[in-house]
Amino acid sequence: MSVAAEMTSIEPRIAELIRHSMALRETDGVAGPCAGVLRDVVSQALTSSEGGKRLRARLALAAFDQATHGDASDERRAGMLDLACAIEVFQTAALVHDDIIDESDLRRGKPSAHRALSQATHSDAIGRGLGIMLGDLLATASVDIADDASRRLASSDGIVAAFLNMHKEVEVGQVLDLAVELAPLDDPAALADASLNVFRWKTASYTTIAPIELALLAAGHDPDESRRTALAIGRPLGLAFQLADDLLDVVGSSSRTGKPVGGDIREGKRTVLLADALDMASPAERDELVDAFSAPSRGDDRVGRVIALFESTGAVARSRERIAALWDESRAAIAGTCAGDAPEDRAFAEACARFVPLA
Amino acid sequence: MSVAAEMTSIEPRIAELIRHSMALRETDGVAGPCAGVLRDVVSQALTSSEGGKRLRARLALAAFDQATHGDASDERRAGMLDLACAIEVFQTAALVHDDIIDESDLRRGKPSAHRALSQATHSDAIGRGLGIMLGDLLATASVDIADDASRRLASSDGIVAAFLNMHKEVEVGQVLDLAVELAPLDDPAALADASLNVFRWKTASYTTIAPIELALLAAGHDPDESRRTALAIGRPLGLAFQLADDLLDVVGSSSRTGKPVGGDIREGKRTVLLADALDMASPAERDELVDAFSAPSRGDDRVGRVIALFESTGAVARSRERIAALWDESRAAIAGTCAGDAPEDRAFAEACARFVPLA
Repeated sequence: MSVAAEMTSIEPRIAELIRHSMALRETDGVAGPCAGVLRDVVSQALTSSEGGKRLRARLALAAFDQATHGDASDERRAGMLDLACAIEVFQTAALVHDDIIDESDLRRGKPSAHRALSQATHSDAIGRGLGIMLGDLLATASVDIADDASRRLASSDGIVAAFLNMHKEVEVGQVLDLAVELAPLDDPAALADASLNVFRWKTASYTTIAPIELALLAAGHDPDESRRTALAIGRPLGLAFQLADDLLDVVGSSSRTGKPVGGDIREGKRTVLLADALDMASPAERDELVDAFSAPSRGDDRVGRVIALFESTGAVARSRERIAALWDESRAAIAGTCAGDAPEDRAFAEACARFVPLA
Repeated sequence: MSVAAEMTSIEPRIAELIRHSMALRETDGVAGPCAGVLRDVVSQALTSSEGGKRLRARLALAAFDQATHGDASDERRAGMLDLACAIEVFQTAALVHDDIIDESDLRRGKPSAHRALSQATHSDAIGRGLGIMLGDLLATASVDIADDASRRLASSDGIVAAFLNMHKEVEVGQVLDLAVELAPLDDPAALADASLNVFRWKTASYTTIAPIELALLAAGHDPDESRRTALAIGRPLGLAFQLADDLLDVVGSSSRTGKPVGGDIREGKRTVLLADALDMASPAERDELVDAFSAPSRGDDRVGRVIALFESTGAVARSRERIAALWDESRAAIAGTCAGDAPEDRAFAEACARFVPLA
């Protein structure tokens, strides 16, 4: 299926599923000005869910088509489409909470959910509270959509459990991400390990591992085998994806990412790039980096200087090497699972390759 | 079953289920200081879940025993116990987020979860972020526990969907609760309606409606009939419960509630008590109340004066009348459903009565 055709089936279905899942069974008494705020929240759910590239849904659909050799009935393919959409809805839920935790004002070039809700209610505190609830509502909706979808798939066993395991892994990843902020800067190797580990749990979990695992379960494969295959392909692929995303923050452009260049540095985020730069820097450069990341905030000049150090120390080049090696590892696993060259095999390999634009 | 025996089966099982559900399937790479923070979060999950009266779990078990005439197999009763525990785990999840939204420092007489995590990490921002994730992790765990439990019940259809519907209703209730804070104080009747409506969604949903509905579904009853019965008994019962809880904030003692007396007033919460007081106050008293609740904060003197006005205007008495009328409505529905006087019928009626200690 062409990318345009895929997006045409995914995009409107996500909105439809969110609307359906967020509707109340009874609406007794929800009236007046309070109903208006509830409408704002549901409408923000739809706004926040727009504009993604749907890489995760498309990977899940490609993995399902590959596993079923494109032979699934329309009913099952429709169930799989909804399951794929559920992953996207969960992503939106996670991003809404992520933006509150990071106090980010922008997401995909628009006001982040809690900021938009603060503006709508003229209150930062109420907007933030509504943002927490919007994230909760979207997380609930994502499981509801997955549960509904699983009942329309021939093999529904373990799908909801695997979906909830994905939730848990991302939540654990966010905990680890916050913990890394407390890590000292004097052990670059440990910092690099800790950052890659955050990528495993916070990103690879739902970006590449779960889409493949859920698709294989939906295709009726054995749960343990599905898990092993999903980890072999999805773990290195997801790490490569997040490394590439962090690299884009430094070498990319604002119009491409929807975020200002150097945003991670401005926030003082501990990344693999920082760890590699610390590892390869001269003592004077290392002091400069530690100073920059120990300061309470960083202005444009300092951000520019850190980007220059990431380049000159060789950290950017090492990230590119890391990405290439992880992509090789993932490709070997893909070849081990689907060596054929049927259209579904090639489409699955292409869906994987979309995660590593810089490789 | 005696209360002590019930608590002996519920309390340790909740801790066991949380530990089991929050454990990772693979633990690759979770090591070092980051693992320590993750352990803090899991340990806080257990601490936050302690100390509840387990009214919801006990109501669910009593409803199940009534519906199955105490004849369920041990396997099914064990599944129902876990489903009942899942409701309690969800409550803890909701309270963790609630305390972040309300910026509450205390819960059940101990530091609230985000405060405890702020202390552990020496950072308010990280502690709050970890608190948001802890709420998410517990919400995920609650569905996971319910999903697991449903597979051990003879009739599992619709249990996960009903459980997720409960999540959604509470989240909508929290949105409405935040919206009420924006409501003007010049229309007491509308304010009373809006507050009662918050009780329907934020409290009755998971306190009394869902425990009964889930128990009836677990007992194999028809979904629509289960919903109707749960609403008929649980809706007025849950409203009465929350009215009684708000009343305790004014007429109760700190040692009983684990919170300082007048806490709702101090926070400026719009409640049915406030609405009734505004409705029955003299013009001068009304101005005084509006002034007090329009101020950015309220000290001890003002809190004491508002409590006195809640008494003198008759708002406290009207809340007692409201509670009595709602309890009558619930009792009529109970009598309509289980008019028998088998031990299970009486135990169910007693489990309901525990929600209205002031009636």
